[in-house]
Amino acid sequence: MTQDTVRKRRSGGRAGNRSRSGGAAIAQMPWRIPLNPDRPTEPLDAEGVAAIHHGAMRILREIGIEFLNPEALELLREAGCRIEGRNVRMDEDFVMEMVRRAPPRFTITPRNPAREVVVGDGHMVFVNVSSPPNAWDTERGKRPGDFETFREFMKLTQYFNCIHVAGGYPVEPSDIHASVRHLDCVQEKLLLTDKVVHAYSLGAERVEDVMEMTRLAGGLSHEEFEARPRMYTNINSVSPLKHDHPMLDGALRCARRGQPVFVTPFTLAGAMAPVTMAGAVTLSVAESLSAIALLQYVKPGCPTGMGTFTSNVDMKTGAPAFGTPEYMRATQMTGQLARFYGLPLRSSGVCVSNVPDGQAMWETSNSLWAAVQSGSNFVYHAAGWLEGGLIASPEKFVMDCEVLQMIQRYFEPAITATTEDDIAVDAIREVGPEGHFFGAEHTQARYTSAFYAPIASDWRNFEAWVSGGSEDTVMRAHRIYKAILNEFETPPMDPAHREALTEFVARRKREGGAPTDF
Amino acid sequence: MTQDTVRKRRSGGRAGNRSRSGGAAIAQMPWRIPLNPDRPTEPLDAEGVAAIHHGAMRILREIGIEFLNPEALELLREAGCRIEGRNVRMDEDFVMEMVRRAPPRFTITPRNPAREVVVGDGHMVFVNVSSPPNAWDTERGKRPGDFETFREFMKLTQYFNCIHVAGGYPVEPSDIHASVRHLDCVQEKLLLTDKVVHAYSLGAERVEDVMEMTRLAGGLSHEEFEARPRMYTNINSVSPLKHDHPMLDGALRCARRGQPVFVTPFTLAGAMAPVTMAGAVTLSVAESLSAIALLQYVKPGCPTGMGTFTSNVDMKTGAPAFGTPEYMRATQMTGQLARFYGLPLRSSGVCVSNVPDGQAMWETSNSLWAAVQSGSNFVYHAAGWLEGGLIASPEKFVMDCEVLQMIQRYFEPAITATTEDDIAVDAIREVGPEGHFFGAEHTQARYTSAFYAPIASDWRNFEAWVSGGSEDTVMRAHRIYKAILNEFETPPMDPAHREALTEFVARRKREGGAPTDF
Repeated sequence: MTQDTVRKRRSGGRAGNRSRSGGAAIAQMPWRIPLNPDRPTEPLDAEGVAAIHHGAMRILREIGIEFLNPEALELLREAGCRIEGRNVRMDEDFVMEMVRRAPPRFTITPRNPAREVVVGDGHMVFVNVSSPPNAWDTERGKRPGDFETFREFMKLTQYFNCIHVAGGYPVEPSDIHASVRHLDCVQEKLLLTDKVVHAYSLGAERVEDVMEMTRLAGGLSHEEFEARPRMYTNINSVSPLKHDHPMLDGALRCARRGQPVFVTPFTLAGAMAPVTMAGAVTLSVAESLSAIALLQYVKPGCPTGMGTFTSNVDMKTGAPAFGTPEYMRATQMTGQLARFYGLPLRSSGVCVSNVPDGQAMWETSNSLWAAVQSGSNFVYHAAGWLEGGLIASPEKFVMDCEVLQMIQRYFEPAITATTEDDIAVDAIREVGPEGHFFGAEHTQARYTSAFYAPIASDWRNFEAWVSGGSEDTVMRAHRIYKAILNEFETPPMDPAHREALTEFVARRKREGGAPTDF
Repeated sequence: MTQDTVRKRRSGGRAGNRSRSGGAAIAQMPWRIPLNPDRPTEPLDAEGVAAIHHGAMRILREIGIEFLNPEALELLREAGCRIEGRNVRMDEDFVMEMVRRAPPRFTITPRNPAREVVVGDGHMVFVNVSSPPNAWDTERGKRPGDFETFREFMKLTQYFNCIHVAGGYPVEPSDIHASVRHLDCVQEKLLLTDKVVHAYSLGAERVEDVMEMTRLAGGLSHEEFEARPRMYTNINSVSPLKHDHPMLDGALRCARRGQPVFVTPFTLAGAMAPVTMAGAVTLSVAESLSAIALLQYVKPGCPTGMGTFTSNVDMKTGAPAFGTPEYMRATQMTGQLARFYGLPLRSSGVCVSNVPDGQAMWETSNSLWAAVQSGSNFVYHAAGWLEGGLIASPEKFVMDCEVLQMIQRYFEPAITATTEDDIAVDAIREVGPEGHFFGAEHTQARYTSAFYAPIASDWRNFEAWVSGGSEDTVMRAHRIYKAILNEFETPPMDPAHREALTEFVARRKREGGAPTDF
């Protein structure tokens, strides 16, 4: 077959992606927990890993980390650390003894056990965008987050099989008072999704409420809840060199009840961290290990993960940049350190672009492929993030899910299988120099599942694409997101569990929720 | 420094990328030949590599390749291959003996020796988009290629330091008759650029003319021209299992004069190749090796490279897809085979999208990162390609150059250096928990060159971006490409060489150029 014939074939065919899906918004890949088969990309040799490790140990021993939480200080004093005011210095022996207690792998089981995720050991799970204050879409532009928009994103989170975890709030619903926001949001999240949920470590009441809501939604006894990870939290250090009070408090509460904690410093090279990427990674590792050591002291063997959020600033303005070459290498380096310590790794899908354009996708592709190359196990903000985390976008969510699906497909061993049947010498002989492979039995037997089937990509040629309306990627993603909301079905929930959940939320709202200072 | 402070910093700063460049269109990275430091991604184990190798050898021995060129048939008969009609069967011993003659590394030296490129041995050079019949930009839409547009792309090719080679015609100038097109185009290319040029193997006269024009433009004697690679050709097999007459003729002409030949089958899985990726790669390897064996028989040690252009079709329409997971793995697998044979690898930067949108950039990112992961040495279509190769776009050219620059920066060992100075414990101690790193001496000493500086990316926050005109990536790329054309300066050329070149072209045009059948 000539290239001309191939080109002609592109002018025919289906009208967009809709015909494939038989009325549904899209024909997506089934739910799976992807397993990354590739050897990680490792820019550091053994000496490089040792240099960062020793640097982190020097920071912990010589400089110390501020723990702005009296309970944590008392625990670390009891553990034998040197405490001066809120400064805590730890010896390498103590840190490494604690880190060795951490499991290299754990599972998190949400209310629907079929949605259990594996964290560690080559597995890679994707989390929706979390925490932007604003939303943006092609119809409404940029606007502050609200509860209705929060609900839209929770539906997308539930809909996409390549999104494994319903992380933080995809947008902050600013129309709900902060005192009860966690009650409304997590209740809605538990009703609209059956995936793993998250608690913000922003005060004792919030963390305790989310654990209780997760327990009630799953119909679990307290013992069942604590028997295995059911939800998780993520804490960020206040770089440089500090852990704040509510984050430590929430981490301790989760760890004590066996719920996983990721510790993710935000070490922006040139701002909150050294301008050198190795320096920024060293600081990040030190901050992360200091909190993990505390948690492993309190609850030996509790599930913990190392987070990375190391990037660089724009040299001219000091503004954060994401998806840069420096970001990629920092993520890969942190992956090497996480493996050195035997800890699961959390990284992110991030970009700086303000709209879901070409820049957004090269930045996001860079960060998601860096997640793959670093052996990341838990990928935050994997779909929907824009403007350095200040915007969540439903179009970007759909577009990112295409990239995530391609990563999942890329992991499938079938693509690179080399059995005699795959090598296909007999089919090549049969087709010969004058034939083509469309009609070969070898092709027909494998055709329907041989290749990745896209959801938002348009593979038609220019003329067919024009006659179909000249929709660019964002326009197609907009149409798809609307169709998904249209056909969304709430996942089933045991009515008794639902009643227990809603009663709890109603009671806690009557009690005023969590205290706020406004 | 808190995340809030970081966010505030994003609202200030420069107005776009223009202020950085002091009047020039952009402040780009300097010319360099990138060296890829990463271990390649290798989906195949040793048995997998052996399975593909043995499959390729079986194809060559049992099925044979059609050589539609009497001279090639005669040469291969003389070499001891079994010839039946135009079918040629080769034994493994012969193929491997010939392939062992091929150098793992060579250089190509254009008329400006400072633009010499290294092919092989971990080096990675980027070639402009080649051969689309059409152009597209935001002002003029899609239209057939013409000479003026050809000239625009040659200026972009010369301007960008991250484009190392002026490959084929970025667009086919359909306003110039095919008989003299190569004369006008290559003359213009040699005048507008001082980078490595290419000859299409489309008939004896064209190949000979381009070699002669390259020789004259460099002011070289025939001996000097043949003493080392000065230009190159690329031939495509007619998959499955065929090499056509003009391609073989051009390859033989180049090889005999010591000029490099890349052999790049177009093995589209499910169309011209088996539906299994390993089968498509096996066929590609067999076709490529068969031509390389011929060339190494004719001119032992001549510079040759293995090309890969293996992708898959859209399952529903049979249209080609690019930048898919299957494409990425096929590229990586072919990289493993190229290393097995000790041959430099050529791959591509490709996409199917019709406009430079999000899809274009995730497909292109996938293919360019696959080029990195496969250890590719020579990357065709690295900037400017759209619509599966039917469109060249100047905006896409600029956008791709941002990705290429990021890849070059990603390769720099400085990012992952771990000297004591990089680990920066002293700077972390100096800044302490209450400070920030902007003002630290450690930062100030490294600030201006610490991070990648973008050319087409906008890293401002949403509000600053809106007040700057809400330009998305394509609009910015359009502005940049226009500015580049505006400030373009033709590279210097010895007047005597120029005169010799233009006189040769004038004479060959008087003679009618190359014969055509129309």
